[in-house]
Amino acid sequence: MTGTLRVGIAGLGTVGAGVVRLLGERQADLALRLGRGTVVTAVTARDRSKDRDINLAGVKWLDDAMALAVSPDIDVFVELIGGEEGPARAAVEAALKAGKPVVTANKALLAHHGVALAALAEEQGVALKFEAAVAGGIPVIKALRETLASNRISRVSGILNGTCNYILSLMQAEGRAFEDVLAEAQKKGYAEADPTFDIGGFDTAHKLAVLTALAFGTKVSLKDVYIEGIEGIRAADIEAAEDLGYRIKLLGVAQRTETGIEQRVHPTMVPVGSAIAAVNGVTNCVAIDADYVGALTLVGPGAGARATASSVVADLIDIARGDTTPPFVVPAAKLEPYKQAQLKAHAGGYYVRLSVFDKPGAFAAITTRMAEQKVSLESIVQRKPRNAKPGVSARPGAGASVQVIMITHETTEAAIRTALDRIEADGFVDAKPQMIRIESV
Amino acid sequence: MTGTLRVGIAGLGTVGAGVVRLLGERQADLALRLGRGTVVTAVTARDRSKDRDINLAGVKWLDDAMALAVSPDIDVFVELIGGEEGPARAAVEAALKAGKPVVTANKALLAHHGVALAALAEEQGVALKFEAAVAGGIPVIKALRETLASNRISRVSGILNGTCNYILSLMQAEGRAFEDVLAEAQKKGYAEADPTFDIGGFDTAHKLAVLTALAFGTKVSLKDVYIEGIEGIRAADIEAAEDLGYRIKLLGVAQRTETGIEQRVHPTMVPVGSAIAAVNGVTNCVAIDADYVGALTLVGPGAGARATASSVVADLIDIARGDTTPPFVVPAAKLEPYKQAQLKAHAGGYYVRLSVFDKPGAFAAITTRMAEQKVSLESIVQRKPRNAKPGVSARPGAGASVQVIMITHETTEAAIRTALDRIEADGFVDAKPQMIRIESV
Repeated sequence: MTGTLRVGIAGLGTVGAGVVRLLGERQADLALRLGRGTVVTAVTARDRSKDRDINLAGVKWLDDAMALAVSPDIDVFVELIGGEEGPARAAVEAALKAGKPVVTANKALLAHHGVALAALAEEQGVALKFEAAVAGGIPVIKALRETLASNRISRVSGILNGTCNYILSLMQAEGRAFEDVLAEAQKKGYAEADPTFDIGGFDTAHKLAVLTALAFGTKVSLKDVYIEGIEGIRAADIEAAEDLGYRIKLLGVAQRTETGIEQRVHPTMVPVGSAIAAVNGVTNCVAIDADYVGALTLVGPGAGARATASSVVADLIDIARGDTTPPFVVPAAKLEPYKQAQLKAHAGGYYVRLSVFDKPGAFAAITTRMAEQKVSLESIVQRKPRNAKPGVSARPGAGASVQVIMITHETTEAAIRTALDRIEADGFVDAKPQMIRIESV
Repeated sequence: MTGTLRVGIAGLGTVGAGVVRLLGERQADLALRLGRGTVVTAVTARDRSKDRDINLAGVKWLDDAMALAVSPDIDVFVELIGGEEGPARAAVEAALKAGKPVVTANKALLAHHGVALAALAEEQGVALKFEAAVAGGIPVIKALRETLASNRISRVSGILNGTCNYILSLMQAEGRAFEDVLAEAQKKGYAEADPTFDIGGFDTAHKLAVLTALAFGTKVSLKDVYIEGIEGIRAADIEAAEDLGYRIKLLGVAQRTETGIEQRVHPTMVPVGSAIAAVNGVTNCVAIDADYVGALTLVGPGAGARATASSVVADLIDIARGDTTPPFVVPAAKLEPYKQAQLKAHAGGYYVRLSVFDKPGAFAAITTRMAEQKVSLESIVQRKPRNAKPGVSARPGAGASVQVIMITHETTEAAIRTALDRIEADGFVDAKPQMIRIESV
């Protein structure tokens, strides 16, 4: 492919406008580096009249994404509409069927239809690229597709959602409550009005499912991701973690196990001295364990118009240079079926916080339940939250309760869950037990 | 380019043997991912009889690198001989002239002849790739060449030498003396018998010069790198740094300034909470500041046979996929001339340690000299090293001396140097002043 690369962009939100701006500013630099021009020739967006502070002189405005996708005025279609169905999916399919390479930042589209779209792209011999869909400006897709194509990867993990990390970082730094910090994040535009997709762990799960397919050469399997969000994290947990030398992060983890692949998203306690613990605010990071290269960690902006635009343009650069590698590196038809590991078989240490009625026999009953499941305790302490009112129970009418923090030695998810279910059934606790997995990272 | 990619390897040290092993183990995986085979067909090394624990059945053994470079049995030449001149340079030139792409891990060759070799590669329309030459397994060359080709980069910095970082980490962790830790590093194989190239900062300078050219689109200019090694770092400095909330790292820093490009290698105090301070042992890291993507940090193994082999194979993967991009992205003829910034104009905070004769007027004289150069002090403390014998001077026959630690506010290199020269001339100190730059990173 030579001559000017003509780019069509569907969706002119902050990222789309950022791509227009970046390509405009760097025309000469890119021509020098690519040996060819890269020019936006056509766009489409919902609202034509909106002021986006970008120069669209000479750029064709098309009525909808479908028209843009098959327009003879473009060589590559950039999808920045979002959503796993509707116009985004239809337009991407149309562009690929018309033999045009596609760049997308749409993690939902990829997590649901990635393999089918990859097959379509391969049929046509064109690229389908998505660096911006996972971890914003961090070039993790490229690292997995290219740098590590010769390595056997055992684990990919990371902080993949800026909203959650912002909330957890602020709770930690300022000792504030979850709801309070969430409201601030919403005011600052770091969290949506309906924050469920982010704080519930679903955004992380979508991104993780894409990384898993690339890392392990398997089909994308979003439905097999175990998901826990950060809604249940209390200031008391953040405080206890700090006292114990940990930070709480929402991690996405995908790893090979003997029984299959494990994909999980949940709050995790990581050692305070670890690189991942130092990743704060809206910054993301991805850690990759591979057999030849060893451990690689990539840290960078997880979102933001400019960083995301940079990743979209990085994909355009690869396309301009002629990249037609299969989207998941392994051809879609040869991706292995996803074989799910049993999460209950996962082994590791756990943090447990119980709100226990302060009455005789409670401690004995709890530790007996743990012993029955062969869960051995590294430590058990009774702890008062820093700002707690003395002796107030969460259940009105009940007696005074105390916070009991336990750290277990390595055990299985099945054992700890059974023990906690029985402890709850015994009636010595006045709230659902809190359980957070510990990873050495 | 299609069909099996036939690889010739010159040099079968630990890295060369690692490449043979990696390509052997992953033949099927790579064929699936690349759509073509990648096979070692010919090799050469100094000692044919040495047991390398690799399978060379069916692989041709050639007498020397020159013969291998032009052999009709190979499609790509891998240079792992080392050295900026001699057989490495001659063979790489011969391979390129014969129209064969080249992969090299040779930072010295690139720092001295990179631009000329790039011009030769471009003339022939073949690749010259060198991911393994800088920061071992970290894909920083790819990030600069591809991901960030649309960004304006303002700064590249990092820990680029594992030997120095190992020594400094161990001095910090165990409070031991430089000479003691160096001897241990030599015993463990982390430092050479003659460690000058590493601990003197020269290895870091070679790597930095290559990164600078890629980041700023300028010609490689090793001779313009300001170099200070870690030989002068005393346990007293590590201790004082720790007390002040810093770690000492040997950093390579390249940045754009108003007067040109600044390249410098020197011990640097970085805040203990920063990501770079957490990089310990032989691990490397590279931080890149770019205008669209923001801050990216890549952390990984800086050396080692397996990680380096992984980077060599990553280059082979790119070549198998048809990469013929100019080696420094910008065509060699269009690289801008290097314009050196005046290091003396560099502004920042400084750490100063003086060994001061304990007599009246010393403090006043020192602070006056600082004030004359408009260097303002954030703090000045008199400090006794943890294991010091009381009142012992470094200069025999002199009176007792005390250690004085000063932290300056932002000032210029010229001002601090002049002040320290005058303090030394005043005769109140019994050893050359120690000065370490502070960077917020």
